[in-house]
Amino acid sequence: MTKSDYAASGVDIDAGNRAVELMKSAVKSTYGPEVLAGIGAFGGLFDAAALQNMRHPVLVASTDGVGTKVKLAAQAGRYRSIGHDIVNHCVNDILVQGARPLFFLDYFATSRLLPEVVAEVVGGIAEACRQVHCALLGGETAEMPGVYAPAEFDVAGTIVGVMERERILPRPDLRPGDVLIGLRSSGPHTNGYSLIRKIFADVPLDTFFPALDSTLAEALLAPHRQYYSLLAPLLNDQAGVDNPRQWPIQALAHLTGGGFLENLPRVFPPGVGAEVRLGSWPLPPLFQLIQQRGEVDAVEMYRVFNMGIGMVIVTAPENVKAVRQALGEDTWEIGQLVAGENVRLVPERNDYAC
Amino acid sequence: MTKSDYAASGVDIDAGNRAVELMKSAVKSTYGPEVLAGIGAFGGLFDAAALQNMRHPVLVASTDGVGTKVKLAAQAGRYRSIGHDIVNHCVNDILVQGARPLFFLDYFATSRLLPEVVAEVVGGIAEACRQVHCALLGGETAEMPGVYAPAEFDVAGTIVGVMERERILPRPDLRPGDVLIGLRSSGPHTNGYSLIRKIFADVPLDTFFPALDSTLAEALLAPHRQYYSLLAPLLNDQAGVDNPRQWPIQALAHLTGGGFLENLPRVFPPGVGAEVRLGSWPLPPLFQLIQQRGEVDAVEMYRVFNMGIGMVIVTAPENVKAVRQALGEDTWEIGQLVAGENVRLVPERNDYAC
Repeated sequence: MTKSDYAASGVDIDAGNRAVELMKSAVKSTYGPEVLAGIGAFGGLFDAAALQNMRHPVLVASTDGVGTKVKLAAQAGRYRSIGHDIVNHCVNDILVQGARPLFFLDYFATSRLLPEVVAEVVGGIAEACRQVHCALLGGETAEMPGVYAPAEFDVAGTIVGVMERERILPRPDLRPGDVLIGLRSSGPHTNGYSLIRKIFADVPLDTFFPALDSTLAEALLAPHRQYYSLLAPLLNDQAGVDNPRQWPIQALAHLTGGGFLENLPRVFPPGVGAEVRLGSWPLPPLFQLIQQRGEVDAVEMYRVFNMGIGMVIVTAPENVKAVRQALGEDTWEIGQLVAGENVRLVPERNDYAC
Repeated sequence: MTKSDYAASGVDIDAGNRAVELMKSAVKSTYGPEVLAGIGAFGGLFDAAALQNMRHPVLVASTDGVGTKVKLAAQAGRYRSIGHDIVNHCVNDILVQGARPLFFLDYFATSRLLPEVVAEVVGGIAEACRQVHCALLGGETAEMPGVYAPAEFDVAGTIVGVMERERILPRPDLRPGDVLIGLRSSGPHTNGYSLIRKIFADVPLDTFFPALDSTLAEALLAPHRQYYSLLAPLLNDQAGVDNPRQWPIQALAHLTGGGFLENLPRVFPPGVGAEVRLGSWPLPPLFQLIQQRGEVDAVEMYRVFNMGIGMVIVTAPENVKAVRQALGEDTWEIGQLVAGENVRLVPERNDYAC
């Protein structure tokens, strides 16, 4: 056997160090005064003294990936939006319980570390963190030849947020008659990409689709929308309302993998299900294109995709108007809670029957 | 194009759900009363009221992977120890700053989700979490055909711990003359596996090596040792000592990727370096075997591997005896701090010259 060193085995420690240099300033741009130590330390240090001014702090944490959307990003050579995807997905996941982001950590692994690619992804992560005042407290980049397919990468992230215990969502007293308000998604977000890639396998990513008014790459790589900036004011306001039943936001559901059918029930108490009225919101052209080209069963579409609704608010009927006014455009009344356990998809207009 | 559904595209939502069922009880076995919501929720909820009884709480967080050790585990069909690897790596990373683990989240991604494999990995994660009283608060399993090479998987994890601000390590007043005490590692831990795999590429994993007194698989897959259980009593004791310079543990360095040469300097103040005396501890046979078979340069060995020392304590000369007595066997005085910036490897005996 010939003389070995680490670089010859496919791992380049210097490339890793260069990647760290490239992303340092982006990472530091997310630091508030709470960050006592970040990049370069074994662990990131976050000052938690502010939690001592809370009534009863609860930490909320979530880890997620962005699925095979990373494969499309690698193919298209567009990496920055993936950074937004992973952060926004995580922000939304803890938002549904009512939490405010504190800090985020990322994991980036690939077959061969290209410092410029890492810097793009982490640059996107830092941008998205800044938008929600969240510190990018740490991360790990790993070069793993043989585990990842050539030129592929994966990215995962973990967010930690905080909230008052008494403000935890969903409220346990959701009831039939409560209304579902849907918020517009920016695309498939980070779910259903294995199916999407199969359906568009023979279509170059730079193909322009008139129905989408964009190239396929632009439509498919649109970053996951974050709902924290939109909903935080409502959540803050309702913190001053004594009777929880009067809170405008009784529950939130983030429509990720499993779509409507599996995510809505996660926030309902036993004996409560939902009716979702198909056609009560505009179905984005991309989902129509996916369904047609793939000949995907309509119910399957609602189990895999968000179908144009990225986040669902549950509110009492008397609060629907106020909530929709507070949020502005791109909200729709898409259904209500009913007795039962399941989510039923109810056709509202003939062209959406399923 | 033929009719598509998600299973046909290589993603099996039901397999994912079955994996969740299999690991539920393992995950729940890690819950203490602080866990208000875990598996099944969008985010895990951890009661942080106890932080309000602290003087000045600091949260410490770290994300890590286990490198291409996962590839060996996949090859050998041994998955449980990888769970210990990822947790223990993270536990050690925040331990070096003095932190106690609160909760952990895992990320598991693979080309094809085999529920039994996920259950083994997560079972190992849960076991390792229980050993340090850390809640396995959340996680994500992802099936990503095309991103991961066939039959490969990756695992990453994030730990969050807590400590008093005034107890943060390393102490800023480390000085020349302070002593390095090395603690035994259990093997290469989670670093250097790309090189190891290259060197042993032509050796079946079940080959018995008399020098190792075990098969290659057993030696290479020995789980990363955690040092929290060993060091927590010392850290707790020194919390009662007013003068920080008298604390037995002035600093800790976890010897991960980059080995001695890159990890030790991470905890030193400017102008302080170290001399490490080669031969002052027994070099485990596995590292000798790696060096010989791979004809690896001696200095490169100390830049890639821990060489039998997984954690280094920095202590004042007058505390060396007490620290070593408190920790029992398998500790060695391996060097000291010196003026300068670098880590120098100093041969102590001829057979370790480099």
